[in-house]
Amino acid sequence: MSSNLTLERLVKKYDRQRVGLSIASLSRQVEHSFKEFMRRTLPFGTRKFQNVIFCGMGGSALGADFIRTVYEPWLPVPIHMVSDYHLPAFANKNSLVILCSYSGTTEEILSCFKEARLRRLPSVTITAGGALARMARRAYTPLFQFTPTYNPSGQPRIGTGYLMASFYIALRKTILTKGGFEHLSNVVTKIKPQASTAYAFAQKVFGKSLVIIGADFLRANAHIFSNQLNESAKTFAPFFLLPELDHHLLEGMGSLRSARRHWAIVFLDSGAYEPSIKKRVRSTRHVFERQGFATHRISFSGTRVQQAFSALSFGGFASYYLALLQHRDPSLIPWVDFLKKRLAH
Amino acid sequence: MSSNLTLERLVKKYDRQRVGLSIASLSRQVEHSFKEFMRRTLPFGTRKFQNVIFCGMGGSALGADFIRTVYEPWLPVPIHMVSDYHLPAFANKNSLVILCSYSGTTEEILSCFKEARLRRLPSVTITAGGALARMARRAYTPLFQFTPTYNPSGQPRIGTGYLMASFYIALRKTILTKGGFEHLSNVVTKIKPQASTAYAFAQKVFGKSLVIIGADFLRANAHIFSNQLNESAKTFAPFFLLPELDHHLLEGMGSLRSARRHWAIVFLDSGAYEPSIKKRVRSTRHVFERQGFATHRISFSGTRVQQAFSALSFGGFASYYLALLQHRDPSLIPWVDFLKKRLAH
Repeated sequence: MSSNLTLERLVKKYDRQRVGLSIASLSRQVEHSFKEFMRRTLPFGTRKFQNVIFCGMGGSALGADFIRTVYEPWLPVPIHMVSDYHLPAFANKNSLVILCSYSGTTEEILSCFKEARLRRLPSVTITAGGALARMARRAYTPLFQFTPTYNPSGQPRIGTGYLMASFYIALRKTILTKGGFEHLSNVVTKIKPQASTAYAFAQKVFGKSLVIIGADFLRANAHIFSNQLNESAKTFAPFFLLPELDHHLLEGMGSLRSARRHWAIVFLDSGAYEPSIKKRVRSTRHVFERQGFATHRISFSGTRVQQAFSALSFGGFASYYLALLQHRDPSLIPWVDFLKKRLAH
Repeated sequence: MSSNLTLERLVKKYDRQRVGLSIASLSRQVEHSFKEFMRRTLPFGTRKFQNVIFCGMGGSALGADFIRTVYEPWLPVPIHMVSDYHLPAFANKNSLVILCSYSGTTEEILSCFKEARLRRLPSVTITAGGALARMARRAYTPLFQFTPTYNPSGQPRIGTGYLMASFYIALRKTILTKGGFEHLSNVVTKIKPQASTAYAFAQKVFGKSLVIIGADFLRANAHIFSNQLNESAKTFAPFFLLPELDHHLLEGMGSLRSARRHWAIVFLDSGAYEPSIKKRVRSTRHVFERQGFATHRISFSGTRVQQAFSALSFGGFASYYLALLQHRDPSLIPWVDFLKKRLAH
């Protein structure tokens, strides 16, 4: 097929950091983390935590958000997400603080780490290195330092497998002890990479801005897809969740209607959604179409955790192909780099 | 001034439900709730709650989100927000469940109420009536049923004062007992309505779609402003938070750049932000301007709770004036009504 030939040429020319290989290595990233960390013990004894506080920014928060969402029916305590410089006031010795920065250099997370030390809170650090790894080692606090062999791209958002598996292992050793759920390492062997459906999708929405819609166990997928579209595909793609969006967003499309050809509404759908949500997917899609927007429905098969993994693979590949179709290197984030330089002054 | 004459005419012609009066009555709504509920006692004895679970959709969730955000430094336990049909798995007798539906007819919240009863969880219900009030009364569970005298528009999103004050009172009587913070009823008497600055702003951004950016104690304000712009002003206006957005959104503006004249980026700024956030506001704004977008910086004075209230008044009026400038009744939400009819089939 000629389109495949073109794609091969695009990959050769623009994917210099092997982002495609990183996306295809999701399962290997997870398995690698299990090999490295599953046998570790954590020094918290029989303490019962009342909440988990996860600190991470951007790509480094996505893996945890994914695990928190797909394992929600089995979580015995709330997981509070922090994307900021400070721990919440309620953090105390019954809180488990998990600090995650892929690079180990994120200033917000270094600040949270220092607060956790000052307040002597139980903590686990997840990172590939940097100042964060040094600080955790010096303070003798638990550290999951992974070697990102299977993320040749070096981009945190494409090393999600390492971050999610590390977070999952930390939860398994502290709060997620009851069972009854699919073990992450079992799920991951059953995932089919979604490269070809993602490529077909990318060709359809190429050049448009997107609205990403998810629900229930695909909520984090909507968030992750949105971030990947921003970063890899340079595509504006805010995400919204059902049933909440039905209570306000439909009116808001008014100011987009004159530009509606430049927009596509994408539903992450599932046969495993409960009937009330399925009905909302259908009806909400109908409203957007009556407003003149193009809509797309993406769905997957398998258990809920398998479906979420398939959606992850789909989103990774779709944003990757959208970058290639624009003749861009999907690994480059020039504006984020520009901002970092400016902030360093 | 001729523009004021025009405005008066627009109000007379399009504000048939007195939305403007409702927005100007924010303080009165709060005071009214204090009179009705501050002397109530709740039957939870000396129980120490480990978390609060708030259930509310759209406009009915905004008041709680506001209180949760501005009182964050004083919260002794996490507040988990549910905008869905189900309570989280971790809900137990040490959780305080707060169920809020302005109309008392929201199907998601009725579902959460039933789950709270089945699981015999401590709960407080906040509503103006409907099935929710009947169910709470029949089950002998605490009920704050307000009479929305000062919201003649009847729209939940413009009755925020009732919802936030009721939620605040419920927290004061359960978890927010330590003091050291500004009492809501004291703050509210010091708020200056932001009608004129909001009108000037509305004229500047009229016809555009918006990106709303907030941080720290104005995070909920960004969310509320976004929802009000959707519903009252029929304006697409997703919100993003600093420092998180710096980690991905800047690249995502790529697909909007060809339409950048149709977009405005609005920063809710504050002299009370910490230096690192102030620096990010400046630098992030600089990036958007280099990308060719128009940016606006809105800021307020007073304590942090006062500033958040001013921002609330500003957002309410700005979305109201944007509707009037479009020659629309700001109270009407035809697509939400259309969807509800379709879902009822």
